[in-house]
Amino acid sequence: MNTIEQMERFVEPRSIAIIGVPRRTGEDAFNILENLLNYGFSGRLYPVNPLIDRILGIKAYSSVKEIPEVVDLAVIATPRPPVLDIVKECTEKGIKAMVIVAQGFADGDEEGKALQAEIMRIAKAAGARILGPNSLGVANAFNNLNTSFVMSNMEKIPVGIICQSGIFFPGLHRLIPVGKAIDLANASDIDFSDGLEYFENDPDIRVILLHIEGIGNGKRFVDVASRVTKRKPIIALKSGKSAHGAKAVQSHTGSLSGRTEAYDASFRQCGIIQVGDIEELGDLAKSFLRLPLMKGKKLGVVSITGAGGVLTSDACQKYGLEMAELEPTTLAKIRELFPPWLHVDNPVDFWPAFQLSGHPYREVIKRLLELVAADHGVDGIVFVSGVFANKELWDPSEDIIEVAHAFESKPIACWLYGPFPEIADKLEGYGKTVVFPTYDRAVRALARLREYAEFLEREP
Amino acid sequence: MNTIEQMERFVEPRSIAIIGVPRRTGEDAFNILENLLNYGFSGRLYPVNPLIDRILGIKAYSSVKEIPEVVDLAVIATPRPPVLDIVKECTEKGIKAMVIVAQGFADGDEEGKALQAEIMRIAKAAGARILGPNSLGVANAFNNLNTSFVMSNMEKIPVGIICQSGIFFPGLHRLIPVGKAIDLANASDIDFSDGLEYFENDPDIRVILLHIEGIGNGKRFVDVASRVTKRKPIIALKSGKSAHGAKAVQSHTGSLSGRTEAYDASFRQCGIIQVGDIEELGDLAKSFLRLPLMKGKKLGVVSITGAGGVLTSDACQKYGLEMAELEPTTLAKIRELFPPWLHVDNPVDFWPAFQLSGHPYREVIKRLLELVAADHGVDGIVFVSGVFANKELWDPSEDIIEVAHAFESKPIACWLYGPFPEIADKLEGYGKTVVFPTYDRAVRALARLREYAEFLEREP
Repeated sequence: MNTIEQMERFVEPRSIAIIGVPRRTGEDAFNILENLLNYGFSGRLYPVNPLIDRILGIKAYSSVKEIPEVVDLAVIATPRPPVLDIVKECTEKGIKAMVIVAQGFADGDEEGKALQAEIMRIAKAAGARILGPNSLGVANAFNNLNTSFVMSNMEKIPVGIICQSGIFFPGLHRLIPVGKAIDLANASDIDFSDGLEYFENDPDIRVILLHIEGIGNGKRFVDVASRVTKRKPIIALKSGKSAHGAKAVQSHTGSLSGRTEAYDASFRQCGIIQVGDIEELGDLAKSFLRLPLMKGKKLGVVSITGAGGVLTSDACQKYGLEMAELEPTTLAKIRELFPPWLHVDNPVDFWPAFQLSGHPYREVIKRLLELVAADHGVDGIVFVSGVFANKELWDPSEDIIEVAHAFESKPIACWLYGPFPEIADKLEGYGKTVVFPTYDRAVRALARLREYAEFLEREP
Repeated sequence: MNTIEQMERFVEPRSIAIIGVPRRTGEDAFNILENLLNYGFSGRLYPVNPLIDRILGIKAYSSVKEIPEVVDLAVIATPRPPVLDIVKECTEKGIKAMVIVAQGFADGDEEGKALQAEIMRIAKAAGARILGPNSLGVANAFNNLNTSFVMSNMEKIPVGIICQSGIFFPGLHRLIPVGKAIDLANASDIDFSDGLEYFENDPDIRVILLHIEGIGNGKRFVDVASRVTKRKPIIALKSGKSAHGAKAVQSHTGSLSGRTEAYDASFRQCGIIQVGDIEELGDLAKSFLRLPLMKGKKLGVVSITGAGGVLTSDACQKYGLEMAELEPTTLAKIRELFPPWLHVDNPVDFWPAFQLSGHPYREVIKRLLELVAADHGVDGIVFVSGVFANKELWDPSEDIIEVAHAFESKPIACWLYGPFPEIADKLEGYGKTVVFPTYDRAVRALARLREYAEFLEREP
């Protein structure tokens, strides 16, 4: 059985045993069985708890051995002490995939480290795979599966994350938009390479995110990641880069966070895009999902505000892009919309066009976006506007989307400010652009689209 | 008449003439008179438009000369051509403060530059002051005054901004929380030093923000700013720092953006906190308003997530803070809450404390925050938690606020994630902490509080 088939047991199980289901139910009972029922998981569920007969209308079993089938996945959600015995029972039953939720193994004391080693030995001998310990397990919105004891919002977003923390589960797409999540946590067995091989071939997933505290088998990771990045972008947040952070990693997942320079070099070599924080991880998930790559470094800026145009120009240099020099024909056509005293250049500051020349706002922005997108020297666009009235006349969404469709090869990133955020939400909803909270984050995301395009051009 | 009295005419006028009031009213008519009435401005208003008799129930005048008093402020909201004549009429009437809204002066062609110079000559000879051209004028939520033609939300927030763009007006506190705004735009006359002198002595304002494209009189600015920073923090976003941005500045406000290194050095010398983008400007406005300064560099981190603790440690090094070494007595008291296998250190990863040891969530976080805040080696705290249920038992707001009150000298910055953002909103509402969208921005803000404290210690 290959890695992908093994991973399918975790991410697409048809039957799950949950060992350690509590009696309590309700919003803050953190009951995995209840959560799975709420999500509408359609596979077979077997709660295991020797002290109860039934829970939420489902028969409970006193041990995994009594379950009338060999389940695809066992979620071991007890505290640490009984885990080793439960793993033994699961292997004896023939179960080949287990999530261990409890903490206090390689992330804990010496006893915990020894326990983890023993669990690994038993699992390996039985040909079973372990996710964790210290793991919330797996979330798969495409399958209504989520083994986290904390309820999450679930949405079928074609972004997969492989992480070492449950932090990416609660509220999933509020923090970063994710449709599938695999929490490696201590990564005693299932590791980043396994997750990558699964997502590489997963038709549901187009963008892969990593939250890495430490990687055990660096050589396999580089081999797998180098192959995957040619097909799907991988965006990584490396944690434990500071001296103190590295120390904290050891008591979090027991990982060795390793030399920062070595990770940086490997990521570059593999074509992995590295981000600085969680916010950028979320920005890039959306951007790689919705926007085409940048074919070159040249940015066109269409801005209702001169100040916004200047700030966007600054960000362009900060992130290694360049402001496009617009073609004379483009400039001439733009001038037709503008009062004669106005110097026309990139950034295109268009407020005077409709304020003084009497052209309606939407007509102006659509025409300018078309002209700048058609310019051969422009590889991507940042559009900046305030939304000053919650009216159709002042809502640029449809115009932006039409231009995005007409110029499929050029990303359009937006920054919309002002008192009507509902317009930004509407525009986001079309899924053809990303509306960023600032110009700075818009430019940063486009720069990363360029970085990935450069990698693909260099190593096709 | 001193600078402050001159500035009061702009920011606290009792009577305003609005020249160029349009006939149209309604959401997207951008009618300054209508906006002022909507805000509830209680001063006397005199619309000037020779083509109408009355508008919105108010008598209109055919010129400023017919207005039965010498108004404190004239807002000249016509296109460029008649502006020079209107300025002449205003000076002849004896009006000493004018906002010029029109574009196309120093920000436009040679004709515009000459016009601006001529306007300045006339105003100066008459002892009148000019704000603009190219300016939205002034917003003052404490006085229901806002001369922008775009409606803004107004809130009495003790933050004042001096800017060169109307971008800071629409939706004011959505972008950054501001209670008063002065848009210098071309800054032909009223400049940053004038604005600073006004805010220095303004009891409504505790934090001052600057959006700078260029400063004309650098020597006076350094003199004034150096004095003001000893009383109130000044936070500056310098725009036009890139080569292309500097070029764009010239067609935006006609300013010379100057050498970046010179600005950086002046800001350091004056104790001005410089930020990298608009988002940081907003973060710091809130932080300087609500949080005490950091007395030293040592950060304590209390985190529900080990991963969050690690990431916060990394950010600590990134922004020049240090992770505090907790006192042995603190560690011993923390251990009482924790399972024995758990390594206790800073960051304090507290999930196991209530998950395994059975202590209620709120009891744990309050106790830990108190212990860490009481530690003599800790100068500030980042609190990280998910909010996993919209229930009182899972709402940390009141506990955090109680600790913030008990330890008035130590800032507590929060990062709350998960599916219940309403809890973060509630916590923000108390005004004693700032809830950041990420750990990274929380640490960055605390580092800037330390930076300002260091300046005050160095130059008391």
